[in-house]
Amino acid sequence: MPVIQTVIRRLSPRIFTGNQIRTFSRSLSAMVHPESGSPFDRNQLEELLRKRFFYAPAFQLYNGVAGLYDYGPPGCAIEANITDLWRKHFVLEDDMLEVSTTMLTPENVLKTSGHVDKFADWMCKDPKTGEIFRADHLVEEVLEARLKGDKEARGVAEEAPKEEDDKKAKRKKKVKEIKAVKLEDAVVQEYEEVLAKIDNYDGPQLGELIAKYKIRNPATDGELTPPIAFNLMFETAIGPSGALKGYLRPETAQGQFLNFNKLLEYNNAKMPFASASIGKSFRNEISPRAGLLRVREFLMAEIEHYVDPLKKDHSRFNEVKDIKMKFLPKDVQSAGKTDITEITIGEAVEKGMVDNTTLGYFLARIYLFLTKIGIDPTRMRFRQHMDNEMAHYACDCWDAELQTSYGWIECVGCADRSAYDLTVHSKATGEKLVVREALDEPYIQKDWIVETNKKKFGPKFKRDAKAVEDTLEKLSNEEKQALGEQLEKEGKITVTVEGLGQVEVEKDLILAIEERSTKISTREYTPNVIEPSFGIGRILYSLVEHSFWTRPQDIQRGVLSFPPIIAPTKCLLVPLSGNEVFKPIVKELGYKLRKAGISNKVDDSSAAIGRRYARNDELGTPFGITVDFQTVKDGSITLRERDSTKQIRASPEEIIEVMEQLIEGDAKWEDVLAKYGEFTGQQLDD
Amino acid sequence: MPVIQTVIRRLSPRIFTGNQIRTFSRSLSAMVHPESGSPFDRNQLEELLRKRFFYAPAFQLYNGVAGLYDYGPPGCAIEANITDLWRKHFVLEDDMLEVSTTMLTPENVLKTSGHVDKFADWMCKDPKTGEIFRADHLVEEVLEARLKGDKEARGVAEEAPKEEDDKKAKRKKKVKEIKAVKLEDAVVQEYEEVLAKIDNYDGPQLGELIAKYKIRNPATDGELTPPIAFNLMFETAIGPSGALKGYLRPETAQGQFLNFNKLLEYNNAKMPFASASIGKSFRNEISPRAGLLRVREFLMAEIEHYVDPLKKDHSRFNEVKDIKMKFLPKDVQSAGKTDITEITIGEAVEKGMVDNTTLGYFLARIYLFLTKIGIDPTRMRFRQHMDNEMAHYACDCWDAELQTSYGWIECVGCADRSAYDLTVHSKATGEKLVVREALDEPYIQKDWIVETNKKKFGPKFKRDAKAVEDTLEKLSNEEKQALGEQLEKEGKITVTVEGLGQVEVEKDLILAIEERSTKISTREYTPNVIEPSFGIGRILYSLVEHSFWTRPQDIQRGVLSFPPIIAPTKCLLVPLSGNEVFKPIVKELGYKLRKAGISNKVDDSSAAIGRRYARNDELGTPFGITVDFQTVKDGSITLRERDSTKQIRASPEEIIEVMEQLIEGDAKWEDVLAKYGEFTGQQLDD
Repeated sequence: MPVIQTVIRRLSPRIFTGNQIRTFSRSLSAMVHPESGSPFDRNQLEELLRKRFFYAPAFQLYNGVAGLYDYGPPGCAIEANITDLWRKHFVLEDDMLEVSTTMLTPENVLKTSGHVDKFADWMCKDPKTGEIFRADHLVEEVLEARLKGDKEARGVAEEAPKEEDDKKAKRKKKVKEIKAVKLEDAVVQEYEEVLAKIDNYDGPQLGELIAKYKIRNPATDGELTPPIAFNLMFETAIGPSGALKGYLRPETAQGQFLNFNKLLEYNNAKMPFASASIGKSFRNEISPRAGLLRVREFLMAEIEHYVDPLKKDHSRFNEVKDIKMKFLPKDVQSAGKTDITEITIGEAVEKGMVDNTTLGYFLARIYLFLTKIGIDPTRMRFRQHMDNEMAHYACDCWDAELQTSYGWIECVGCADRSAYDLTVHSKATGEKLVVREALDEPYIQKDWIVETNKKKFGPKFKRDAKAVEDTLEKLSNEEKQALGEQLEKEGKITVTVEGLGQVEVEKDLILAIEERSTKISTREYTPNVIEPSFGIGRILYSLVEHSFWTRPQDIQRGVLSFPPIIAPTKCLLVPLSGNEVFKPIVKELGYKLRKAGISNKVDDSSAAIGRRYARNDELGTPFGITVDFQTVKDGSITLRERDSTKQIRASPEEIIEVMEQLIEGDAKWEDVLAKYGEFTGQQLDD
Repeated sequence: MPVIQTVIRRLSPRIFTGNQIRTFSRSLSAMVHPESGSPFDRNQLEELLRKRFFYAPAFQLYNGVAGLYDYGPPGCAIEANITDLWRKHFVLEDDMLEVSTTMLTPENVLKTSGHVDKFADWMCKDPKTGEIFRADHLVEEVLEARLKGDKEARGVAEEAPKEEDDKKAKRKKKVKEIKAVKLEDAVVQEYEEVLAKIDNYDGPQLGELIAKYKIRNPATDGELTPPIAFNLMFETAIGPSGALKGYLRPETAQGQFLNFNKLLEYNNAKMPFASASIGKSFRNEISPRAGLLRVREFLMAEIEHYVDPLKKDHSRFNEVKDIKMKFLPKDVQSAGKTDITEITIGEAVEKGMVDNTTLGYFLARIYLFLTKIGIDPTRMRFRQHMDNEMAHYACDCWDAELQTSYGWIECVGCADRSAYDLTVHSKATGEKLVVREALDEPYIQKDWIVETNKKKFGPKFKRDAKAVEDTLEKLSNEEKQALGEQLEKEGKITVTVEGLGQVEVEKDLILAIEERSTKISTREYTPNVIEPSFGIGRILYSLVEHSFWTRPQDIQRGVLSFPPIIAPTKCLLVPLSGNEVFKPIVKELGYKLRKAGISNKVDDSSAAIGRRYARNDELGTPFGITVDFQTVKDGSITLRERDSTKQIRASPEEIIEVMEQLIEGDAKWEDVLAKYGEFTGQQLDD
């Protein structure tokens, strides 16, 4: 049983195991925007995301399908900007080999990787109603509800009730009603212990808990079947005969591993190197929930960094070693604590907390990437997998977790997959997936060999010939040497062949038994794989939460403070009014901006300028250009910055240059403001 | 029968119907590179693409799956560059609303769109061997083989035999052996007529041909089943119960249509506007063939441009009207000819060849896009669908076809889908998918109404109440007026209700029958959709063929002359030798190039510089920088241009600026060469 559990964990793409959506434990007061001090209101954010069509449940016209989401224009643009930056930050910066492999995958590939047999969650069914429950979620919910009922019965106040309500709504909880029933103290403690370990139970163990605690269908009180494994892959048939079973890939990794030999050749056989891939993967969740955080179709960006297991040092680690990050190492968690260690990645490797500098390099690069796209570093931590949750092959595994109103969300996994995948595919196909390396100093290897007379061997042993030869070849040096002595003495050798028993081989069938020397000048090894794996949808949602605040002077006005490089649109073009005189100027400016690679939208609606800017604050547009009557006179335009709402006034050429610098991160708004001086001649904001 | 045929054609994504891979008819002598004059050799190109891992059959380790391909680093980079440019050229330039919708699609959506019932090809089965044949392909191959055999028997020489062989190999032809059997002259003519119309037969008609011409399994001579429709969508089940049937989308269009209301709102209800989407679609081909040209998983880029059916003019048509393009209009084809008309798009619209300026605008924009990415405009034509192949809703439909060694390939479709999709989804879901537009001049509409007394109507007619009321409401003005007169006279009205027969309604159940005036100030309409739809894989393959040539002085050296903006890597960095002194310079240059957004690779292998450049000619890298001992002295570097192999020498800053201009298309190599002078001091190329 524990073996199945281990295998299931190992195969789950680390960033989507879902169990890692941990209970939200911060009190409400902590959920305020760090700069504006505005309290966070998830309902308000969701209303904004819906209204501005960042994303929406797919197929809403047809009442929707759980776990499927469509991205509207702003969401789609952010997604494209994140993946574009990912490509620059990882693929181009480290010369990775990006590939694009198919989602449709034949069964045999995923049989080898283990997904067909083990990539599963545990589910229970109510045979009467046909309802299906994910077993771990059900146990969690029922016990939590009972603990809540116990608190009510004891008259203890709930903490942060609003957050809890939100969460319940999101989860579509099965337990609709909390009954105020007091529990024994010992039972309370037992429940709490179970909940603390809820991620660690396998199916049979969950079945035991369900039986022991008399957990039933919360709606009907109907009895449930014991948990059975439900494979999370979407199945289909390839080709017209229907005979070739296939699946939609659950991760992009396998497609990369299968191309290992081609990639190594493309890289001129140089090691180490990395492949990378951005693409959709699929997971048939039993009960999708929490919006973009657990979905059935999702965009992943994965890196497979192939490294010599004997040389896990990274040549560029020096460039990142002084970056300070928050770590939650496994020993702290094992002790039941969540205390953060904030040290540099250099120190973390030095003290052995992070296994090697390649893993360390990627953790630091992940940190840099996430902060670059606008993730709040104070709400990012690197949590190490505990020994009991870590895959059996991994020597170290860390998740980048981002804090949201749903709790700490695992958004990037960074694991050492060892040589597991290349080894199993090689075994299944008979193709070597190895690196051959010229040795600096060749050495002489001495081996005993048994050389048979092929011409006579076949006719003598007929269809058993191969079995006898294979057995001889696989003998140890000592055994071969002993046979040599026997041949010398007796003129024949005796060997035990599986299925045939004792077999005698006469002298005339043997050409030689002797020790031979071979010069070994090449080393052959299966590389290990370090895998940083990004869930783009989860990162996008966390980013949206980290970027959201409201103007203190008007709490109804939401702002999404995306960094310019990530913002869906960089610039809003606003003519002061519908006056015809502004139209050619706006058109010309739009052309110049596009030419400079700055995406822009014109808002020439009749709404007040302040209202038009408010609309674009919600879309996270960082800059606004106003064309007014002064522009008609001297060509100058104003540039408004979203967060400060302050403006400068200058020529279009100067403004475009300033924007380019601000977008690329080569300048700061404060400095621009200081240089050009704040322009206040125009009352634009309400 | 013709109805099914029409529907199948209508539903086929226009760019992947596959039938449009037309027979290659150019003689071999025409297949030479226009500039170098080198003859085209597909085997040589394919060997290059394999060796440099542009793409490869997926799952080769597991013996592959037909119709699935993985893209290696260069293919993946070209694909990314093409889609990136597509986004800039179409989405940003015309302010389109890009969305990203799910591939998993529930059955009811595709039932409405018609795909579940009609998205099919016809297949025959040999019940003895289990072999499956695509019916139209089989008829085509067998008749072609018989015609070939007839020619052999008549002693007529084959044209372009090599090309034919290539094509046969690609197609994995079922007919392995050509028998030299002379046919009657009348039969030859009949076969030729059938082949000319092969795209136009439906299943039963193909069945008749198979029976009439005694077409059997070419390998075993076994009898075949009559053609049956095989649905080309991949089926799967969504969710744990397996009850929700779903498919992988066959086009991105449906996901866009379903979000129409949200997109219109996002666009502030302004018309016209376009949505766009880049993403994978799937098609379970019966027998994939011709490499990237007919595959089961493919990247599409689709635009749905929503337009008022009464105002199909495009505001930016003026900007493109003078572009000259090659047209193959339908009347020419109907006359059995393929003569090209080369005129401006302005003229084409003016003479009514192209239906309207919106369609014309997109055709011209497609032309500009394809030439920008490097498609040879002399091998591009716009073929109009003939009336019998055009979907029943379309008023005009054009394909951008690119000429390759497989013939003219349909790579972009541009159709007017009319209001079909929005209408059927609206009908199926009861949700309005319309545009409401304030009328410039409101008008008064007069209508007769029958107002019933709801309170009394229910108790009187009970469950029939609704049927009676609905019938009354749906009557024409004249009928209502007549009822009014009857009421006046008889104190009751008589109406025939379906399923109830004659029904009498007493006066007390009726409040009024009278003519009322309504002021109509809004117009409501279902927009028409113009859909440019791009098959990225087909475009990519055609581009590779158009870009390939060999150096006249060494026919073994292949060159891929991609435009810099499309090339997988922009610049190769080559240190003259492995001397340590070059290393920091190369590293620094790499950093500067990345900073300028110029992707680059270092080749510091020990191969001769000429060999290193040859390798990169095959990858299509447009620029090469050499670092030599002169660089160590004065910092200057050389820049080599791929096609001319000529070099200039200048400072890194100048070289980077030159490269930026060349990549953006703001400068030409000839001018750069003239400005800096050719540098010949170094013998770099062999």
